Amino acid sequence: MFFKLQHTSGGARAGVIETAHGRVETPIFMPVGTAATVKGVFHRDLREVGAQIVLANTYHLYLRPGTEVLEAAGGVHRFCGWNGPVLTDSGGFQVFSLADCRKISEEGCRFASHIDGSRHMFTPEGVVDIQRSVGADIMMAFDECPPGTADRAYAERSLGLTERWLERCWERYECTDPKYGYRQSLFPIVQGVVYPDLRERSARFVTQFPADGYAIGGLAVGEPAEDMYAMIEVVNGVLPADKPRYLMGVGTPENILEAISRGVDMFDCVMPTRNGRNGMVFTTEGVINLRNERWKSDFSPLDPADLSFVDRYSKAYLRHLTISGEMLAAQIASLHNVAFYMWLVKEARRHIADGTFGEWKPQVLSKITRRL
Amino acid sequence: MFFKLQHTSGGARAGVIETAHGRVETPIFMPVGTAATVKGVFHRDLREVGAQIVLANTYHLYLRPGTEVLEAAGGVHRFCGWNGPVLTDSGGFQVFSLADCRKISEEGCRFASHIDGSRHMFTPEGVVDIQRSVGADIMMAFDECPPGTADRAYAERSLGLTERWLERCWERYECTDPKYGYRQSLFPIVQGVVYPDLRERSARFVTQFPADGYAIGGLAVGEPAEDMYAMIEVVNGVLPADKPRYLMGVGTPENILEAISRGVDMFDCVMPTRNGRNGMVFTTEGVINLRNERWKSDFSPLDPADLSFVDRYSKAYLRHLTISGEMLAAQIASLHNVAFYMWLVKEARRHIADGTFGEWKPQVLSKITRRL
Repeated sequence: MFFKLQHTSGGARAGVIETAHGRVETPIFMPVGTAATVKGVFHRDLREVGAQIVLANTYHLYLRPGTEVLEAAGGVHRFCGWNGPVLTDSGGFQVFSLADCRKISEEGCRFASHIDGSRHMFTPEGVVDIQRSVGADIMMAFDECPPGTADRAYAERSLGLTERWLERCWERYECTDPKYGYRQSLFPIVQGVVYPDLRERSARFVTQFPADGYAIGGLAVGEPAEDMYAMIEVVNGVLPADKPRYLMGVGTPENILEAISRGVDMFDCVMPTRNGRNGMVFTTEGVINLRNERWKSDFSPLDPADLSFVDRYSKAYLRHLTISGEMLAAQIASLHNVAFYMWLVKEARRHIADGTFGEWKPQVLSKITRRL
Repeated sequence: MFFKLQHTSGGARAGVIETAHGRVETPIFMPVGTAATVKGVFHRDLREVGAQIVLANTYHLYLRPGTEVLEAAGGVHRFCGWNGPVLTDSGGFQVFSLADCRKISEEGCRFASHIDGSRHMFTPEGVVDIQRSVGADIMMAFDECPPGTADRAYAERSLGLTERWLERCWERYECTDPKYGYRQSLFPIVQGVVYPDLRERSARFVTQFPADGYAIGGLAVGEPAEDMYAMIEVVNGVLPADKPRYLMGVGTPENILEAISRGVDMFDCVMPTRNGRNGMVFTTEGVINLRNERWKSDFSPLDPADLSFVDRYSKAYLRHLTISGEMLAAQIASLHNVAFYMWLVKEARRHIADGTFGEWKPQVLSKITRRL
């Protein structure tokens, strides 16, 4: 993997990442494809709205279809038919949030599958092996992700564990080869809850490893947005400028633009698809609740900016589909919301290149965060 | 509306219907868009797989979004964004099968909405008015649809009512104008359960009305397939050759080809989308149950005939999505199955034009009805 920083505008950065499966222009939003599917969106339509890289979840893929099937397919790209870059998380966050009966030890984490209760163990070495089988272009180190409200003692203890796990991940990464002939990068993850000194320590620790990029985890997990922004500033003050920085699981359009202004390059979040399935649509004119009576006879297009072909469906029609429980509503809203997020980061990139990101950010936020 | 018969091959017919919203080549399959959406399929993808005309349900549209919204939109085409021809059924079948507390009288049918229990009445005049508001290119007369096991006395009594209702529908049709400036055709419906003399009487009765086409209703509702084919033969022996014949709610690929060989031109059925949502896929090589263990590591494409872009997804991936309860499974299977039905009638048409329909039918059926 290769990263080139192309432009800056204030703290905001625009660059390009080259992977074995193609090029990614940053800042970038990565739609979440939990089980190797961005829920409700065809790969063809993902491409068409500008998606360049998708995220998949190691935890889900390990349980279903399993590494045996993924290896037989020749990796996740061939398995699901998405031939662009893929990033996998380490499974840590899912084990801690989804699985049952989890038990964390120095060794790793024992858990019971949320699907069938079967018992498994994730270790730092094991999740590197799984991600080798998945064949992700970008893999994540195994970390513990404490809640945003964790006290300092827990946060410090947890960070120590995450650091020792990173050493083990890196060693496994160094002594194993890719299974499918192309390079896989491993990103360490910065933790430290909302304690600036722990975040700084963590950022310094991870940069010891000559990684192709670094991730910032454990944010947007319950702490105030201002704390999140403060932590990003601390961490990005330490991380090297010539490597991409990935803020995991974030977030709202506002979170994303604020993080971009503080030097973050990569994002992922379930919000566009999950909110879409729930009848909430982001548009270039503001936020729409599709169930609202207000749209009953509003035959104007979903988004006049025409971000994708589904934007030509009318608000009234989409309200009708939503009220009627028709799956086409979820499909249209999901695809549109992904298109909106891709538009947002593309516009951000354009304004960084122009040097006008600082003026553009408050203007666009005042429009797109309105409730219509 | 204008129909031109172009070719025959044995009893099978190929023709063309011209409507205000475009041309339909027969024999044709009409995907079912109950609530103005073919479940799980974008209009763009419908077009791409060769859909030429879609069916919508008067009963559903009347309840939601309601005629007020449809009129404000300027009709169903503008409301939903499908600009090809639309056919609406009369709502009779839905009232009898879906609604609660239905009560049939000479006047019409009282019923309670399956959505909110609200009380309504459908009359022959009323359903013509509703279909005028919907703006369908082809409307259906209001009929009673008795079960396929109805005894002769019930069948005869019911047919009498359907005949009187047709007279009232026709009168209303004649004395009302389209609301949106384009021609709407009204098709009478032949009933008579499985009694040849009643079917013949009904066919003779409906042909008194100078309609643009005629429908055959009350079949594929529980009677043996052989009875259905026998009734089609009786009815098509009476219906005029220069008007299209629409067999309502039918059916399996085999039913459709058998009916085509007996002179039917138009079909609709929920099977491609409903079966698709349930993990059953029709392919050019046979029928697939997506849940089957057999597909776990079968990375061959869903259908080698490449009937639509989703056919390139692998069986193993589609099985994974199905097992995982991912909505993309329903989307892929629904779109593919619609593509399969469109392919089937297009191939039938080609073989009718070539004069080889009779040889082709058993060959293709032996392939596509296999269980893989």
